[in-house]
Amino acid sequence: MNEVKPILAVTMGDPAGVGPELCLDLLLNQSVLSVCKPVVFGDYECLKHVATKLNKPLSAERIPCHASLDRAVFLPEGPYILDFSNVEIGELLPGEVNAMTGLASYQFVEKAIQLALSGCIDAIVTAPIHKGAWHLAGIDFPGHTEILETMTEAPSVSMLLTSEKISCSLVTTHIGLSNVSSALTSSKILKVIEQTHAAMRAMRSKKSPRIAVLGLNPHAGEGGLFGDEEAQIIQPAIDRAIAMGMDVLGPLPPDTAFIKDKLNQIDAFVCMYHDQGLIPLKLLSFDSAVNVTLGLPIIRTSVDHGTALDIAWKGTAKASSLYEALSLAVLLYKYNSA
Amino acid sequence: MNEVKPILAVTMGDPAGVGPELCLDLLLNQSVLSVCKPVVFGDYECLKHVATKLNKPLSAERIPCHASLDRAVFLPEGPYILDFSNVEIGELLPGEVNAMTGLASYQFVEKAIQLALSGCIDAIVTAPIHKGAWHLAGIDFPGHTEILETMTEAPSVSMLLTSEKISCSLVTTHIGLSNVSSALTSSKILKVIEQTHAAMRAMRSKKSPRIAVLGLNPHAGEGGLFGDEEAQIIQPAIDRAIAMGMDVLGPLPPDTAFIKDKLNQIDAFVCMYHDQGLIPLKLLSFDSAVNVTLGLPIIRTSVDHGTALDIAWKGTAKASSLYEALSLAVLLYKYNSA
Repeated sequence: MNEVKPILAVTMGDPAGVGPELCLDLLLNQSVLSVCKPVVFGDYECLKHVATKLNKPLSAERIPCHASLDRAVFLPEGPYILDFSNVEIGELLPGEVNAMTGLASYQFVEKAIQLALSGCIDAIVTAPIHKGAWHLAGIDFPGHTEILETMTEAPSVSMLLTSEKISCSLVTTHIGLSNVSSALTSSKILKVIEQTHAAMRAMRSKKSPRIAVLGLNPHAGEGGLFGDEEAQIIQPAIDRAIAMGMDVLGPLPPDTAFIKDKLNQIDAFVCMYHDQGLIPLKLLSFDSAVNVTLGLPIIRTSVDHGTALDIAWKGTAKASSLYEALSLAVLLYKYNSA
Repeated sequence: MNEVKPILAVTMGDPAGVGPELCLDLLLNQSVLSVCKPVVFGDYECLKHVATKLNKPLSAERIPCHASLDRAVFLPEGPYILDFSNVEIGELLPGEVNAMTGLASYQFVEKAIQLALSGCIDAIVTAPIHKGAWHLAGIDFPGHTEILETMTEAPSVSMLLTSEKISCSLVTTHIGLSNVSSALTSSKILKVIEQTHAAMRAMRSKKSPRIAVLGLNPHAGEGGLFGDEEAQIIQPAIDRAIAMGMDVLGPLPPDTAFIKDKLNQIDAFVCMYHDQGLIPLKLLSFDSAVNVTLGLPIIRTSVDHGTALDIAWKGTAKASSLYEALSLAVLLYKYNSA
């Protein structure tokens, strides 16, 4: 059977971080090229510069980025670099982000979302941007998730971090810890449970994945002694999800939710805040986790690490998380197309 | 050399939980008895009842509890059970806590603290109490730490959880997550750093242990984008600790603080809230962690698990955490006596 390969946008991330070298590795990886056509959304000169510095080959068809791209240009055998020519290579140093690197990495993402919405590409895989550099460039979005949410007009998105060992979705993400409680609502939690349930069906090929919902407070509030969010906000969402036919349990005391017995029995954890999910996830799967945005009309996965400025352009960054992100994007594409 | 064995109070914990069976195991453990004289603070009838049910021997000298106990009664070869006779065995069912079990377990702890303060015993090791049962019994303390703090009039105590793999001390403990930010002060954080530093010197035999202090917010606030507690409250405490000569780093982004490379380089983590420390600790060391109260004039260690009501009196609970707690109490006693 001759399967059609999906066309995947791989945004290069911040030019001063590890994104360029990860993209170079990806463009050479035959197992990646056998399952999809990657299009690196980046700066050709920057990629060539890093390739020369690291003594790596750069072999991909360069396509200039312009407004009226259509799907046809990506149909012949790739891989491709969609060249934005938006990096002044003379002003670029490894590990030094600034307004220029912030703007460049923003433009890669913005274009990828436009092309995904128009059907020109099939999925987006993102390398790490630097939130501070976006801020310097005057970009209001705190990160990828928020620009995806805005540009796709998705009413409710959430972040799922996943690896072979553990999957965690987040009810709140990049907000201060003291704002978490007031940002929680039963309807938001229910939405994340539903999105997590749907994602696990696609990713784990299970009709009825088991979802655990965490409490917010120590010991899940210890019956109200240390907070009532569990009874007032979290439990009603769980009850509703169970009534809708989903296999959901909780609210679990956060500290014992991730012990080995539970990890083996639970397909995904719905976490109330960023570090509740990311501490156990990064502890268990630092190099191999993937970030998936749930609730979008398009497919988007991402590496689960930052720009790693301290090791940028040294050739030591591992591309494993990017490969996992790419594999998952292909899997989700196939599930949606079936 | 004939070392004097320390006399250790081992409080039995909630009679309806796993405490009684753990104490039975301990009273039979020759490696425990070779390094200390344990005195189980509990109810003799309850211990006998559980021993009969589990077909285990009960071999220890029974001493009735009364007001005027002195050290001399514990000097001959033990082990001992200090019998409070405060459990109505006919009304007791495994896994069913109530005001009676709450009050009994409270009295074990209260007496142990009194006897430690008077020098009658050398250290306290506690089996798990049930906070809800204490509440039912009308006891105002949320848990062990708070009663220890009050009865010893210690100006500032903190909780350290420790295992071979990871050690975490907590700046805040049993409060709702939404109250954490307002409970943080630079002086409280500095005090916990100092206490952690001192504890690590004793426990790891290192002159200059390396202490990592965590941020509160995602990405440690990302330069102020998601909260300013890092800059306003946490950094000044770290700066002061460094100025005092301690090897301290941070504030670290919480989600990457516990990855393998860091775990290998850092002796202890100072965590801002309960689950920030206990999620990674229980994930890595569920059965073997020990809880130590820092800042007390007496030595107190504890198991790091709850009453486990679902498996109470079944003989399946593992005593490993209790043994570790006991070993650590002996180690701290020797360090203090040296």
